[in-house]
Amino acid sequence: MDANEIYERIVNERRFVYIAGPCAVESADQIMKAAKFLASKGVPILRGGAYKPRTDPESFQGLGAEALEYLAEAREETGMLVATELLDYDMMPLFQNTVDFIQIGSRNCQNFPLLKKVGRMNKPVILKRGFGNTIDEFIKAARYITREGNSRVILVERGIRTFESATRFTLDISSIPVIREKSEFPIIVDPSHPAGLARYVEPLALAGVAAGADGLMVEVHPDPRKALSDPLQQINFKSFSGLMEKTESILGSLGRASLKLEEGQRGQYDIYK
Amino acid sequence: MDANEIYERIVNERRFVYIAGPCAVESADQIMKAAKFLASKGVPILRGGAYKPRTDPESFQGLGAEALEYLAEAREETGMLVATELLDYDMMPLFQNTVDFIQIGSRNCQNFPLLKKVGRMNKPVILKRGFGNTIDEFIKAARYITREGNSRVILVERGIRTFESATRFTLDISSIPVIREKSEFPIIVDPSHPAGLARYVEPLALAGVAAGADGLMVEVHPDPRKALSDPLQQINFKSFSGLMEKTESILGSLGRASLKLEEGQRGQYDIYK
Amino acid sequence: MDANEIYERIVNERRFVYIAGPCAVESADQIMKAAKFLASKGVPILRGGAYKPRTDPESFQGLGAEALEYLAEAREETGMLVATELLDYDMMPLFQNTVDFIQIGSRNCQNFPLLKKVGRMNKPVILKRGFGNTIDEFIKAARYITREGNSRVILVERGIRTFESATRFTLDISSIPVIREKSEFPIIVDPSHPAGLARYVEPLALAGVAAGADGLMVEVHPDPRKALSDPLQQINFKSFSGLMEKTESILGSLGRASLKLEEGQRGQYDIYK
Amino acid sequence: MDANEIYERIVNERRFVYIAGPCAVESADQIMKAAKFLASKGVPILRGGAYKPRTDPESFQGLGAEALEYLAEAREETGMLVATELLDYDMMPLFQNTVDFIQIGSRNCQNFPLLKKVGRMNKPVILKRGFGNTIDEFIKAARYITREGNSRVILVERGIRTFESATRFTLDISSIPVIREKSEFPIIVDPSHPAGLARYVEPLALAGVAAGADGLMVEVHPDPRKALSDPLQQINFKSFSGLMEKTESILGSLGRASLKLEEGQRGQYDIYK
Repeated sequence: MDANEIYERIVNERRFVYIAGPCAVESADQIMKAAKFLASKGVPILRGGAYKPRTDPESFQGLGAEALEYLAEAREETGMLVATELLDYDMMPLFQNTVDFIQIGSRNCQNFPLLKKVGRMNKPVILKRGFGNTIDEFIKAARYITREGNSRVILVERGIRTFESATRFTLDISSIPVIREKSEFPIIVDPSHPAGLARYVEPLALAGVAAGADGLMVEVHPDPRKALSDPLQQINFKSFSGLMEKTESILGSLGRASLKLEEGQRGQYDIYK
Repeated sequence: MDANEIYERIVNERRFVYIAGPCAVESADQIMKAAKFLASKGVPILRGGAYKPRTDPESFQGLGAEALEYLAEAREETGMLVATELLDYDMMPLFQNTVDFIQIGSRNCQNFPLLKKVGRMNKPVILKRGFGNTIDEFIKAARYITREGNSRVILVERGIRTFESATRFTLDISSIPVIREKSEFPIIVDPSHPAGLARYVEPLALAGVAAGADGLMVEVHPDPRKALSDPLQQINFKSFSGLMEKTESILGSLGRASLKLEEGQRGQYDIYK
Repeated sequence: MDANEIYERIVNERRFVYIAGPCAVESADQIMKAAKFLASKGVPILRGGAYKPRTDPESFQGLGAEALEYLAEAREETGMLVATELLDYDMMPLFQNTVDFIQIGSRNCQNFPLLKKVGRMNKPVILKRGFGNTIDEFIKAARYITREGNSRVILVERGIRTFESATRFTLDISSIPVIREKSEFPIIVDPSHPAGLARYVEPLALAGVAAGADGLMVEVHPDPRKALSDPLQQINFKSFSGLMEKTESILGSLGRASLKLEEGQRGQYDIYK
Repeated sequence: MDANEIYERIVNERRFVYIAGPCAVESADQIMKAAKFLASKGVPILRGGAYKPRTDPESFQGLGAEALEYLAEAREETGMLVATELLDYDMMPLFQNTVDFIQIGSRNCQNFPLLKKVGRMNKPVILKRGFGNTIDEFIKAARYITREGNSRVILVERGIRTFESATRFTLDISSIPVIREKSEFPIIVDPSHPAGLARYVEPLALAGVAAGADGLMVEVHPDPRKALSDPLQQINFKSFSGLMEKTESILGSLGRASLKLEEGQRGQYDIYK
């Protein structure tokens, strides 16, 4: 299955989707290890940053084109589809053959020229909520994409700025029912960025599942302590397995099912039909 | 069982607790109707405002002492325990024999003299988070109660003020794991005030359950359209039944159980042993 | 002049008013020293906390009744009028003869029973904005006072909670024109609490003056480094003199004048006629 | 004088700078009318949007290249320098000969690729604070520009998102002293966007002046009621004249002076030496 087909199944069958992987691609080995683990759990979409938008210009900015190659290898090997952030449209040629889902980050939620440009592409767009944006602005930002022709937009609630500092951002759990009511887009939850700390990821993720989210986008790293970015909020394989088990359990109790990668033709796995 | 015993079971057995009832007690009939319905569903604690803190001094301020009488009748009839807000310590004599759980509202979260005074009582205190307070301040406010001797405090996450206006307040779902980590108090979720609209109550409530809350405090009214306060956010009996069913289902999937009122000696029901 | 007369002049003549003094009364000597300095500069109203609402119950809570005595001595000696916070109406008898302006703190902005009670008194009330309250709520809180008969309310903008953490609170400078438009109350600025740091007090104070505030309420301490509360944000005598000079200069450039204490009959000084 | 020279004078002489003009360039006549009026008042820099970032994709998006031509005509006629927003680096060739100050809007405050690109140009950059960004992030965003070689960055405080809805944004007046302390950049105030309503523009502007801002950036329109964007917050010529008079008066009272355009060689006016 390709990205467009997956998108349709999320929308039409309300299948729950997992997107997981490290904050940033750090080496061929790191991303392959993560991909193999996640594929074995049935996660259909691999995330991993190639170009990282960092608050501080002196921080690690991602491996760039090299990261895209590693992602392509992991995709080839496992059959997972790849989602990565497009920071600058100039990089689009590099993304064309490697990236299945174009991710637009929180800081670019209202970068309208970029939204228009990805609106002319034939790949689903994963649009993260700006941490300073209202739900209304978020939905209108998605319209910048769809009015150019690309109707496949997945929205991601990833927390907003509030006065509370115990967590990195405040996950606006209410945005899930509101977005479901006010738009036709799937809405998934990123529990990693609002949590800020690995131990808060699971409760936020499960809250999202129970509130009716269409999926989860989680930062998972083979060895979080050694991560070059967001070391505190990435969870390890064991934690992800536990989280997935509980997610499946809650989904089941609510009569829902997830979309899984299973053993198949492409690479080792393919999306379950 | 009395309120102190219930408190111990919530803490020691991690039993999930339901607190439900109308925003305000509006008549003997209204609160009795609500109580009978809720008791029949097994809800152990009845809520209902007697003295209402309203933003506008011209709004309905509650029936006062009359409401306390109606609550006492509902308690006598059903065996439910009663929780209601204490706005002013001067009213305490009226509360002494009628009210099982003393509720301190969001606007009084840092009303330290009031907290100290209820800290000298032998009744559990339900302390709501100030909508402008951090988690750290919230926990410290509870310490004003416990250091006077009363260690039975239940914290309620009920949403904070943020820039998002699609909902009345932003439920800070992250506060659940943070409070569980940083304090010994049970933390329950009030989904009604952050929702602001009845149709958002269920997803917020279920998010709270999945995030690990110790209970729910929900506004339920026999006929929300006729409510004298918060008419938009109170849910009706049917919605509450549906919410409870899903809550039980999620609790079950996470290996947890709720505390239920069952047919018994006191009134028609008593708390299940 | 008594407090009611001063209030009328602020309202009717738009005279600018200074309220200054330490965060908390810490000793007879400390408050007398502050009062003498401030009176010599012409500041008509002395502030100083007797009962302090502290986030942490283990922090210094004020000297209580003892502080009120020291304030009375300073008032007798200098002729300044006294403003101090009423935390609990039970303390009112102690305030009756000592305190000229009843201050209601930020945490009690929506403590409606307390507001109603001071609404039945014949002393001007200084009501601070709740740091989680909107301007609309703030004005409605003042109405709880006026509808009981006491129309002399002074509002204080002292900053609200936002995501910005470089300062302790965010001074909502816009509240000045909004409150002037939407209510009949004088609105003064407290630059100390939003600043959080002494070196930011002056720019915030001057911003308030230029935006049209009716006065300033500033924390001034003889030796801020030794203060028992808010040591970082209190300014010393020299800084206050500088601030006052610039304030007078801006007031003059805008065609306004302040209300000053001058040498006279009561104590050493009296309010300038 | 060119833009770089003006920048140096703002920084080295702490001369106060006015930037004014309509939200959007709407016609040759409208912008010429505004420019002539502003030049006659001595305003050295003309602002006017050519490409407008609008929340709603269906709203007026600016006249684009046509607007740049009109701005060039106004610049030629009056000698004012021109500031306009660069939304997309693809437009840079059009800006090269027409625009003196490259403005980066609030929504692009953390559009790092764009910041890097303007960091390689030899034109001063006017960077507006993201309405969801902290001061720390704002300064770090400016570093993305300076580390590429362009050290001439002017920061603009234009309000942040908070829970207060009486104004469009909350002007963070505290950011002025904080930014002056923590960076070497001039910081100017945009009172128009936080105000949201024309009648609040003056008090916010004057607050900025008194707090120590290095300048003002104000939306001024020949006939605000007919404006195609932001009709409520643009002020007319008469209001701007009044605002400027008070600004000069406060500047004078604080011992400061502004940078003025005066009759001269280039066009009708040139920057006063």
